[in-house]
Amino acid sequence: MVKIAFIGLGVMGYPQAGHLAAKGHELRVFNRTKKKAEAWVKQHGGSAHDTPRDAAQGAEIVFTMVGDDNDIRSVVYGDEGVLGALDKRAILVDHTTASADIARELDLATREKGALFMDAPVSGGQAGAENGILTIMCGGNEETFARAEPIMQAYGRTITHMGPVGAGQLTKMVNQICIAGVVQGLAEAVNFALAARLDTDRVLATISKGAAQSWQMENRWKTMVEGKFDFGFAVDWMRKDLRIAIEEARHNGAPLPIIAAVDQLYRMVQQQGGSRYDTSSLIVNLRKP
Amino acid sequence: MVKIAFIGLGVMGYPQAGHLAAKGHELRVFNRTKKKAEAWVKQHGGSAHDTPRDAAQGAEIVFTMVGDDNDIRSVVYGDEGVLGALDKRAILVDHTTASADIARELDLATREKGALFMDAPVSGGQAGAENGILTIMCGGNEETFARAEPIMQAYGRTITHMGPVGAGQLTKMVNQICIAGVVQGLAEAVNFALAARLDTDRVLATISKGAAQSWQMENRWKTMVEGKFDFGFAVDWMRKDLRIAIEEARHNGAPLPIIAAVDQLYRMVQQQGGSRYDTSSLIVNLRKP
Repeated sequence: MVKIAFIGLGVMGYPQAGHLAAKGHELRVFNRTKKKAEAWVKQHGGSAHDTPRDAAQGAEIVFTMVGDDNDIRSVVYGDEGVLGALDKRAILVDHTTASADIARELDLATREKGALFMDAPVSGGQAGAENGILTIMCGGNEETFARAEPIMQAYGRTITHMGPVGAGQLTKMVNQICIAGVVQGLAEAVNFALAARLDTDRVLATISKGAAQSWQMENRWKTMVEGKFDFGFAVDWMRKDLRIAIEEARHNGAPLPIIAAVDQLYRMVQQQGGSRYDTSSLIVNLRKP
Repeated sequence: MVKIAFIGLGVMGYPQAGHLAAKGHELRVFNRTKKKAEAWVKQHGGSAHDTPRDAAQGAEIVFTMVGDDNDIRSVVYGDEGVLGALDKRAILVDHTTASADIARELDLATREKGALFMDAPVSGGQAGAENGILTIMCGGNEETFARAEPIMQAYGRTITHMGPVGAGQLTKMVNQICIAGVVQGLAEAVNFALAARLDTDRVLATISKGAAQSWQMENRWKTMVEGKFDFGFAVDWMRKDLRIAIEEARHNGAPLPIIAAVDQLYRMVQQQGGSRYDTSSLIVNLRKP
């Protein structure tokens, strides 16, 4: 039984906090829209609070799962922020996919309080959060990881200590870079197969056996053929993740010639009204109207 | 026991013809460099011939496995070409990765002879040919496929009838388009991971569990980190395959914005002396010298 604060009850945080409550932990939650926090408490118990600072009061571990760097700043800093209430030896774990810079910044700020920080972005999407099978990429020191890991098992299946603070975010960037390349190639391939009047089911069955295989091919080929893009993780969020990777690459010097272009192709999906489509929607740029 | 002609004993054709001989078929072989054909006969029996036409004499089925459209023309047409000897009801199966246009052209030419044609490009590479586990993508009519398929089982594991003549080549193009997208994304990801000083083994173990997974990630990540590009299927051949796909897209209208760019990135690998590197070598464009 650990006293836990959970900040951010969106499509990911809501079920994550639910899994923690189901383990018997004492949950103190905050959400920008308080109604949602109240609905969560009604469902799972615990207590809803008016500010992140109130929620963090007395917590041994504080989880944040919000939108981006600015959202994190808004729940951590200031009079109402988590830092104002963070106990010595408490842990702040940020599940937001954010920059490595904000991770390092939060690490400094928590250490000034005598507390510990870990960046821990996840993959697996809404379904992964709901089923408690997220992949969690952690950056922090050994002690922080050792204390947080058993608690995160409530919603994580693969929980890996990637290295020092920031290494979780950097790993997530590598993950998103891979996805962007796979999906664009797949979009061009599916569209080409349709233009060539091939039997797309038969093509999938054949090429998914070999060197062209990918998770995206196995899970998104058919829905791309059908033009269904409702798997949840939206183009808007993917563009945020790619922006973070492209910014980081300005620091570490790694060229991203094609991934930067795919980011622009996602922009074109947004312009066509696809901001809420899932990431497989790159094919909409290619289809004949 | 079928009388078979096999034209082209390169890294693919040599072991393919060997698997046919091992099944007890009577093999008549031709290779541009005759020494190689003689070496093959010494190893596998059968007979080596001076021209494709001589090899095709009396064969029930003629396999060609050469370099590109022009190579096929040179072994099929003219005084010394296969067509000059092709029996009525004989089958010409072309395993070369070539254009859909040449497939349709050869179909017409063989039909004028009362013979049958099937395009049947393969994937699986040299190892797939040697181990007899190739994926074979077939384009032709039902009868041709039904007669050729049992014979190709000597070296094929997944043998699929994709549709009419040309459909085999079109499917192979879809396969290569997917690979080009996956590999470039992976190259940018591996290079980014190195620039970010991440533990690349740990990154691989973590991200290969989810939506970023691909065959290329599982089989080429580590060798890309090590800068080893000796898996056989060369950049020169990949560029030939991409050229065919890009040409076909001029006909069917499918845009290939990123794949056309990746083709140019392979050109840059060639310029750096990587013509014989395998297809995972796109990372050489990204590394610091």
